[in-house]
Amino acid sequence: MRMYDIIKKKRDGGELSTEEIKFFIGGVTDGSIPDYQTAALLMAIYFRGMSVRETCDLTFAVRDSGERLDFSAIGGIRADKHSTGGVGDKTSLVVAPIVASLGVKVAKMSGRGLGHTGGTVDKLESIDGFRTTLSEEEFIAQVNRVGLAIVGQSRQFAPADKKLYAIRDVTATVDSMPLIAASIMGKKLAADDDCIVLDVKTGSGSFMKSAEASKELARLMVDIGKSAGKKMVALITNMDRPLGNAIGNSLEVIEAVETLQGRGPKDLTEVCLTLASYMLSLAGKGAPAACRALAAQAIADGSALAKLRETVAAQGGNAALIDDPAGFARAKYSHSVKSGKSGYIARADTEAYGLASLLLGAGRNTAEDSVDPSAGILLKKKTGDFVQAGEELAVLCSNDPSAFAAAEKTLLGATDFSDARPAEEPLVYDVVT
Amino acid sequence: MRMYDIIKKKRDGGELSTEEIKFFIGGVTDGSIPDYQTAALLMAIYFRGMSVRETCDLTFAVRDSGERLDFSAIGGIRADKHSTGGVGDKTSLVVAPIVASLGVKVAKMSGRGLGHTGGTVDKLESIDGFRTTLSEEEFIAQVNRVGLAIVGQSRQFAPADKKLYAIRDVTATVDSMPLIAASIMGKKLAADDDCIVLDVKTGSGSFMKSAEASKELARLMVDIGKSAGKKMVALITNMDRPLGNAIGNSLEVIEAVETLQGRGPKDLTEVCLTLASYMLSLAGKGAPAACRALAAQAIADGSALAKLRETVAAQGGNAALIDDPAGFARAKYSHSVKSGKSGYIARADTEAYGLASLLLGAGRNTAEDSVDPSAGILLKKKTGDFVQAGEELAVLCSNDPSAFAAAEKTLLGATDFSDARPAEEPLVYDVVT
Repeated sequence: MRMYDIIKKKRDGGELSTEEIKFFIGGVTDGSIPDYQTAALLMAIYFRGMSVRETCDLTFAVRDSGERLDFSAIGGIRADKHSTGGVGDKTSLVVAPIVASLGVKVAKMSGRGLGHTGGTVDKLESIDGFRTTLSEEEFIAQVNRVGLAIVGQSRQFAPADKKLYAIRDVTATVDSMPLIAASIMGKKLAADDDCIVLDVKTGSGSFMKSAEASKELARLMVDIGKSAGKKMVALITNMDRPLGNAIGNSLEVIEAVETLQGRGPKDLTEVCLTLASYMLSLAGKGAPAACRALAAQAIADGSALAKLRETVAAQGGNAALIDDPAGFARAKYSHSVKSGKSGYIARADTEAYGLASLLLGAGRNTAEDSVDPSAGILLKKKTGDFVQAGEELAVLCSNDPSAFAAAEKTLLGATDFSDARPAEEPLVYDVVT
Repeated sequence: MRMYDIIKKKRDGGELSTEEIKFFIGGVTDGSIPDYQTAALLMAIYFRGMSVRETCDLTFAVRDSGERLDFSAIGGIRADKHSTGGVGDKTSLVVAPIVASLGVKVAKMSGRGLGHTGGTVDKLESIDGFRTTLSEEEFIAQVNRVGLAIVGQSRQFAPADKKLYAIRDVTATVDSMPLIAASIMGKKLAADDDCIVLDVKTGSGSFMKSAEASKELARLMVDIGKSAGKKMVALITNMDRPLGNAIGNSLEVIEAVETLQGRGPKDLTEVCLTLASYMLSLAGKGAPAACRALAAQAIADGSALAKLRETVAAQGGNAALIDDPAGFARAKYSHSVKSGKSGYIARADTEAYGLASLLLGAGRNTAEDSVDPSAGILLKKKTGDFVQAGEELAVLCSNDPSAFAAAEKTLLGATDFSDARPAEEPLVYDVVT
């Protein structure tokens, strides 16, 4: 088999065989295929696309390029959620405790933030003492005992994806539906869950800018997961506005705790209940509507919050912070951003909000950067709210006060006003089953 | 300027600016652009194409990536021809002496053969003592004195093309009209001719398999040459059959001499007279028809043959071979290929004929191989001829008799017979001015 022939076949619109896709990913993984041939094939895939069968084969080859987890030692149904990444998205910190408190196992591996999007591991590390690295034995034992564990990806899962992404990132071949799906699902399927709920974020703060493209991606990923034997649902959720009011690591943990206390922002609470209801439903706890009631009850009776406290304690974190978030270290400086205009907020460029948070120290420009756990943004007004000139839009928090000017400018530049109240957009656009 | 943005622009169907194309070729030449980005852009160009303006810019950037020749010290009009490569194509050895004998200067740099196609330099080197490497001063002085010099490309012309071609060759991006045109013309324009006649070969033995594609390529190259200030014509000629009856280096020189003696094969003579007439016409010697008469006269009166003899002598070759080609070293072994069938030859796969010649030692698999000057094929029957079973189709010549079996099999497998006489195909399909 020759890589040249594989490139030519895809260039000419052919469908690659399972063996050809395995040969390609094998060669990417062991370095025997030079990057220029990989780049040429990726561009040909960009133009010609891939069938669902090809995309499944690509996903499985990516999944099989490295180690895979074996969760068979975990008793009970294992469910997970996966978000395509957004701004202010702390849903894992809310949803995982809800689901685990209702008897479904959540063996969660999460990522770190990059660019304008945050990562669950960074958020948890703002909790004093919290260990995001556990041995596989510790991890499985905790899931069996507590029902929930959340760790970072310490092992090399799907190494082919890392290599492919590095090339896609510099050759303008990121925006390809089959390549995106195979990247996300190749990594996700290296874990060993029974049920997966995908949260496909849509809008200015996400990877997918249109609901149509999001739905296409969701459909593809659901089909891939099913063909791997998983129970799958995907939600298309709104990322044209940050989720909740807090952006930044400890600020988001605090907001997650408030949500588990039943006093979270309406949008965040709504998306969390929806995600939890589908995870529970896939795990056999009933129809989504009934599961939603169960999830709401787990918040109301404090059992979900207790599960978060138990998880934090099990992973060495200071559980007192969950009962009294005032104990979180605060940023040394804060700065109030006031509106120069009066009117309704018609549109907020969510990606710019994420970048403003990054400027304050809450995020990473490159994978090597460290994050400031206390930096971030507390939004006082969001899309649809009426603002008087001079009224406070947001509070910026940072240990580097020199960052305030640029962050304020970014925030204000990303916020459009109108005289008329904008139409309310749904939080959940669609459910793909 | 970033290569990423250039790739993305072309991927999305945009037209690259002159500066962007210069940046790309500059980075390819100095190695600052990694091969994977080059490969991605080449594939995007394959899919999106290039405007004539972009293709001209690409051609000029390739031309300017290395040294350029200055022929201003040559007195008089300088004309050249360039073939896209074929099998049995010894037209340069016939046309250049004709044109030079009529007072037009021919300062010719030729290539070596590769794969199934031969090269003029290899053919000339079968003449004992012939030097294909001259200093620039020697070269120019000989053109001024004799009117004709033919050398190999000793200098590094258009190095960007070499790098681009190496990547195109392994990424299935060779078959792109703008990339082909920029490659051929980028090198051709590094020389300093006033008039260029392109011989775009069409059919099974050539790069371009269809007359339509050949015409499109010819149109593009003529436009590029004109925009560089050259007088241009392109002929679309038939390469669905080898040109003449001889394939192989000394065998082709002998046939070229016979053609200059007025007793060459009809097809070769016809194509040579046509090429010569357009070179002469571009150089101001009159209309093509009148120039054709001049060319025929130069053969009839022996002046063209005398010019070849003079050129061979000037470059150190044994000029006696021109008067008595029987003096050429002969291959030690020959083998007669006989037809197993009776009928008209309906079709000959010319590329396979070229490969059979390569098997006999006349060609190169890689640029590092050496060639056997005396090896090759003498065709006794060609497309359109009637053959009796057992009649001789060709004589194979080689110093390696173990090659005969494979070469014979290749030749016979590439020859189709029919009961009806096939329609005669034109030798010159079209003239693009």
